[in-house]
Amino acid sequence: MIMTAERQRPTAVTLPKTATVTVGLDVGGTKTEALLVDEDRQPLAQTQCPTDTTSPEGVMDSIVTAVNTALEEVGIAPAQIGAIGIGVPGLVRPQDGAVQLAANLNLQEYALGEAVTAVFPAPVILENDVRLAAIGAYQHLRVQQPIQHMAYLSIGTGIAAGVVLDGRLWRGAYGMAGEIGHIVVEPDGAICACGQRGCLETIASGPAIAGMAARLMRPNPVINLTADNVYQAAQAGDSVAQTIVQHVSYYLSHAIQWLIMSYDVEKVVLGGGVAQSGSAFLDPILSELSRMRAESRLAETMLGADKIMLLPYGFNAGVWGAITLAQKGD
Amino acid sequence: MIMTAERQRPTAVTLPKTATVTVGLDVGGTKTEALLVDEDRQPLAQTQCPTDTTSPEGVMDSIVTAVNTALEEVGIAPAQIGAIGIGVPGLVRPQDGAVQLAANLNLQEYALGEAVTAVFPAPVILENDVRLAAIGAYQHLRVQQPIQHMAYLSIGTGIAAGVVLDGRLWRGAYGMAGEIGHIVVEPDGAICACGQRGCLETIASGPAIAGMAARLMRPNPVINLTADNVYQAAQAGDSVAQTIVQHVSYYLSHAIQWLIMSYDVEKVVLGGGVAQSGSAFLDPILSELSRMRAESRLAETMLGADKIMLLPYGFNAGVWGAITLAQKGD
Repeated sequence: MIMTAERQRPTAVTLPKTATVTVGLDVGGTKTEALLVDEDRQPLAQTQCPTDTTSPEGVMDSIVTAVNTALEEVGIAPAQIGAIGIGVPGLVRPQDGAVQLAANLNLQEYALGEAVTAVFPAPVILENDVRLAAIGAYQHLRVQQPIQHMAYLSIGTGIAAGVVLDGRLWRGAYGMAGEIGHIVVEPDGAICACGQRGCLETIASGPAIAGMAARLMRPNPVINLTADNVYQAAQAGDSVAQTIVQHVSYYLSHAIQWLIMSYDVEKVVLGGGVAQSGSAFLDPILSELSRMRAESRLAETMLGADKIMLLPYGFNAGVWGAITLAQKGD
Repeated sequence: MIMTAERQRPTAVTLPKTATVTVGLDVGGTKTEALLVDEDRQPLAQTQCPTDTTSPEGVMDSIVTAVNTALEEVGIAPAQIGAIGIGVPGLVRPQDGAVQLAANLNLQEYALGEAVTAVFPAPVILENDVRLAAIGAYQHLRVQQPIQHMAYLSIGTGIAAGVVLDGRLWRGAYGMAGEIGHIVVEPDGAICACGQRGCLETIASGPAIAGMAARLMRPNPVINLTADNVYQAAQAGDSVAQTIVQHVSYYLSHAIQWLIMSYDVEKVVLGGGVAQSGSAFLDPILSELSRMRAESRLAETMLGADKIMLLPYGFNAGVWGAITLAQKGD
């Protein structure tokens, strides 16, 4: 169990025994993170623990451990939980709290909401993790400026977008809105896990970047190359890494263009594991967008650099989105 | 002045002198069409006249002629007009009724709404023509099935989409939502009017199809080849035309995929000048989508043939959308 030491965590908490708290959970394939806030959204405790994905019970144990650790941290009873929001990486049915498919959690048609309510007697609301991060990012931005329409583009193991229109999450007719990782961008490209050829994910996801590096950077091999290795090497001047980053940034810039041309949002926020490389990740995208603006008046109007931003490093938009959804209930 | 003889037009009308009517207008680069309906949306008269695009006054004259002809047709006084909805091909500001830019109408920063209200004393609401057609198509579909989310993809001189989400038109933050004609699909493709290279419009718009045919079908030249000539030739077995149609259909199918993956709409309705080629236009797209479904489970789930439909031939979705917008006022 690793306790985070984020600035939001107060040093001492004295919460009345009658006060209710909200729990936000981000259940990832590697770790489960829990955030506890009071009625004014003030953080009380934030914990994380490894996710046991060997079975549904294992996932449940991870959730219970993360929540209980947070509760104990500040001496709050489970009965004081007013609502729980949970984000999972996969396809969910918010209406009945079921996970339809979450490959990285090894869950399929699992009534996660029901299982959590059985342990912590509070209403549970379930949502896809990228969508929750979109809500979290939106709330975060709203503090600074009165935006209403935003897309959150997550680039990690997979690629997907969460979209907020008129201040509300847009899920689509079948809960599939924003699945742009599977838009075909290279007709003759590599075969994707989804069966298609040349999906955006086959080029710009973390594993795709690492795979490209493993093939092209062989003369100077590094064990277990990650996308971050590639970004850092490119920033340090490695020309092969730079070629890879340029290739990836080209496609990500065009994905940003699609999001803006389709939805006409005010901001596109970039997040996910790959985006954690910070400026090494963002700068080449901004360069490509700048090139696009220089060659087209339409692009100049629509692809302004001020529309693009990176999720602040270390800010877990997912748990904050889970809190918001749990408190608002929609 | 050509009077249409559509089935909706009743043979005799006796409307009380106190009844109010709604006018829907579709002001195109070639012709201006007006539709007059009563309070129950029953069509009273439908007229069209050539659009005079030599000056803003010329455009106004065309509008006035189309409306007056319709009014006279059924003996209705201008004072009985309750509201007027107008669609124009370009960028508009619905809030103040101004046309920001409509290249094909030769209008720029023109207070069209104000000018029309000065002639016909009724509230005027202005919108982009593709968006109005999206509303018209949505209303048309709703009669048959209870859908809520729909994209209308217009393929004509330009390419753009109008999107209805939760039963309402989605305009975007800056009125640019659905401008997917300028998504780059061929990085090394032809230069588009917008300045970018390889926009969807450079491949699949009417002029692009005709241009490709003029280059490739030279051995068997036809004067003033149109996109429809190409579609008909392909259907008749011309192998060069078939190659062009296949190329265009590939990109249009992927545009449909983007719309579905981004918005997760229940239906994508195809319309616009190029789509008027009917089955010669639609069948190759359905074949391509079928091929995409066969190779991917995700595509199989999301790109069902029942999601795609053609706007009925001769149905002017634009004027009907104008009527709806004028009556609802949003």
